[in-house]
Amino acid sequence: MLAAVFALAGFLQAQAPRQVSLLITNGIVVTVDGSRHIYNPGAVAIQGTDIVAVGPSADVAARVRASQQIDATGSVVIPGLINTHTHAPMVLYRGLADDLALQEWLEKYIFPAEAKTVSPQMVRIGTQLAAAEMIESGTTTYADMYYFEEEIARATKAAGLRGVLGQTIIQFPVADAKTPDEGLARAEAFIKEFANDSLIVPAVAPHAPYTNDAKTLQASRALATKYNVPVIIHISETSEEVSNSQTAHNGMTPVAYLDSLGFFGPRTLAAHMVWPTAADIAILKARGVAVSHNPESNMKLASGIAPVPQMLAAGVVVGLGTDGAASNNDLDMFEAMREAAFLHKVSTKDPRAIPAATALEMATINGARAVGLEKLIGSLEEGKRADVVIVGMSSARQTPLYDPVSHLVYASRGDDVRTVIVNGKILMRDRKLLTLNEAAVLAEARTFAQSVRAAVGR
Amino acid sequence: MLAAVFALAGFLQAQAPRQVSLLITNGIVVTVDGSRHIYNPGAVAIQGTDIVAVGPSADVAARVRASQQIDATGSVVIPGLINTHTHAPMVLYRGLADDLALQEWLEKYIFPAEAKTVSPQMVRIGTQLAAAEMIESGTTTYADMYYFEEEIARATKAAGLRGVLGQTIIQFPVADAKTPDEGLARAEAFIKEFANDSLIVPAVAPHAPYTNDAKTLQASRALATKYNVPVIIHISETSEEVSNSQTAHNGMTPVAYLDSLGFFGPRTLAAHMVWPTAADIAILKARGVAVSHNPESNMKLASGIAPVPQMLAAGVVVGLGTDGAASNNDLDMFEAMREAAFLHKVSTKDPRAIPAATALEMATINGARAVGLEKLIGSLEEGKRADVVIVGMSSARQTPLYDPVSHLVYASRGDDVRTVIVNGKILMRDRKLLTLNEAAVLAEARTFAQSVRAAVGR
Repeated sequence: MLAAVFALAGFLQAQAPRQVSLLITNGIVVTVDGSRHIYNPGAVAIQGTDIVAVGPSADVAARVRASQQIDATGSVVIPGLINTHTHAPMVLYRGLADDLALQEWLEKYIFPAEAKTVSPQMVRIGTQLAAAEMIESGTTTYADMYYFEEEIARATKAAGLRGVLGQTIIQFPVADAKTPDEGLARAEAFIKEFANDSLIVPAVAPHAPYTNDAKTLQASRALATKYNVPVIIHISETSEEVSNSQTAHNGMTPVAYLDSLGFFGPRTLAAHMVWPTAADIAILKARGVAVSHNPESNMKLASGIAPVPQMLAAGVVVGLGTDGAASNNDLDMFEAMREAAFLHKVSTKDPRAIPAATALEMATINGARAVGLEKLIGSLEEGKRADVVIVGMSSARQTPLYDPVSHLVYASRGDDVRTVIVNGKILMRDRKLLTLNEAAVLAEARTFAQSVRAAVGR
Repeated sequence: MLAAVFALAGFLQAQAPRQVSLLITNGIVVTVDGSRHIYNPGAVAIQGTDIVAVGPSADVAARVRASQQIDATGSVVIPGLINTHTHAPMVLYRGLADDLALQEWLEKYIFPAEAKTVSPQMVRIGTQLAAAEMIESGTTTYADMYYFEEEIARATKAAGLRGVLGQTIIQFPVADAKTPDEGLARAEAFIKEFANDSLIVPAVAPHAPYTNDAKTLQASRALATKYNVPVIIHISETSEEVSNSQTAHNGMTPVAYLDSLGFFGPRTLAAHMVWPTAADIAILKARGVAVSHNPESNMKLASGIAPVPQMLAAGVVVGLGTDGAASNNDLDMFEAMREAAFLHKVSTKDPRAIPAATALEMATINGARAVGLEKLIGSLEEGKRADVVIVGMSSARQTPLYDPVSHLVYASRGDDVRTVIVNGKILMRDRKLLTLNEAAVLAEARTFAQSVRAAVGR
């Protein structure tokens, strides 16, 4: 009897297709779910903000009635990419100066440009430009740390992107705070403003262990713990930072020093981590600290090669990031995936290091873990938020196609992204941005660039 | 009196604009000429196969009357990129297998695929696909070595590309030759067929010092010298190759061994050169041997990091290449430029290593020197062949624009290429291929891929 009821329920379900808002069919669906399912052809059904079905195209299509449909023939459908480290507004300094020694680059160009041009207006203009670039290259969530982060949050929401956004705390006077206490107060106000937002996760971002004193670092951690928000911080980016820390702090590396301060509470995201010792890696694992690996920035600034295979082997969560566009010079996560795969092969002398599947995981589900959102995003699974990217896979450069995961990492790039959906909303369709007036965004950025030029005398 | 005659001639010249076939105006013209002139806005005038004027846009436009005109506003105009090392038909094995130990990759996938599928038909289909990809990413000249090179030459000419194409010589039986003597005979016939061609430079391509005996290597060199054509060869790609050579040849590195055979005559192009000793570099410089650096392939196969800054400092000519798409996995020279700049910064711990301008030179004028064609191509100068590429520079990813050379290397990629001209002929206009039926080329490649899959049991 019970069986008959279930059979009847199944029959009724089969007869009454579920109404959904959006159905993507006929693509190669690379889910990055727990079993790494790939459906070819596959479909993803979305109702409101959520994914309600993922599977073989015909099966899913038979179970739903869709208000809107996208045919993804010739394309690969992936979870939206997660950029775990950037400074969005710095796109306005993209290519301002390159190929210089680090101190010259910072002191002659980046610091003067920031001192003279960072403002709420700059941050808004830069974030809109960055949002256009991120959407166009398939990023749906990004972690950020900069100044006037509330302006970044507003522009991010308006663009429809998901952001884990950290208000910077730094010991010396900056554009939005004269003292670290002012920065902490700003951060608290920022957290309150964006608590429970559907797209923005506010965070506290003490810049680095060497740019804050122990009291400010501990206050930053306390603030994050009070509101249960993430902490984003740069750690061990250069070997100089490590040796300076050892000199200043009784032989302790930056990781050991921060650990000694009790800094590594829950949801800590450490950007760069180029120079951890084996003992540091053990601390990261024990404290659940996630790492944002930024291969392009680390190469361009000659910071070094992070021991990513060792961190992964130790069980540390490692996501990928681009860093700010001033040191990359783009925000394309496809480039970050390929560079992570390439760099660690040559550095370990092992072509099996960071295979394509691992690079894709770092840019999706591991990125989600790194920002503490793995229950909501990072894979295409029923019940998760609908952050979905459709990547064209039919160009000459992508032909023939033997393995979609290989092609995503080794033969594709942001420009191949056709359509981007965040929280169930289409932000770009067939490369046309729907939430941003691209011409106006670019024009405003070009006008603003004149003040950047003037600031550094170029 | 004489002065008056000259003034009159100048007046008449000013009054009678020269007729030209094509005029490109209003772009940022990055010439890569001897003085590295950049004209903004600049123009390039083309008559027939040749560049007849380069300079400020208004000046050039005033001096010519053009049958056809291209407005390059918002774009950068550069010399066509020169890919100094590939195996074009291997695009058909793109992504067939990745992330494997070198021997497993070769023995389980690449060698079986080649043994079962290399044929004149495969080579034609693969070259057409590669030509589409190369044109779409701004490559106008490429150096190649593969089998049935005459088919590659025909497909290259039909596509309108310039090629320095080497018929492979190898000691063991391959698809187009059972013995090295047969290979040498094929190479001689190939050289005769394409002697004095306007687009094709035939070359002799002994595969490597370890895949040919001394007699075959010397016969290859003699053949090249007899016809004054280039020699293309793989040298010192892996550290194993070097140690094997030292074991087999009395302690001699591959470079020293080849030098002892008198192999390094004029126009020798050595691909990879990842592991030269200081003494090797001195030999390369002394013999005028050029190097093709392939950073992406060297990283993906974990071959190692070539000492490019040291070779450049020693005065060795170093061009850039992609290698075959099976080990890259694309033919995009913008990626090769960026990777060369990134890789040597991090490997030398110096962010000043391989600045953007050097990467661009390696992909243009130094590539031309590497293939022995610097009098004809590699820069935008009056009297050179009209191999010209127009690169869109107005996307969000490329905004704002402070320095076009930085953006070419750090913020652009093949997909930004809009229009490609080789030998004065437009091969692609606004991303529409004019010499290839792209849909047919891709369809044929996809069909052929089924036999590749069958060959390796995938």
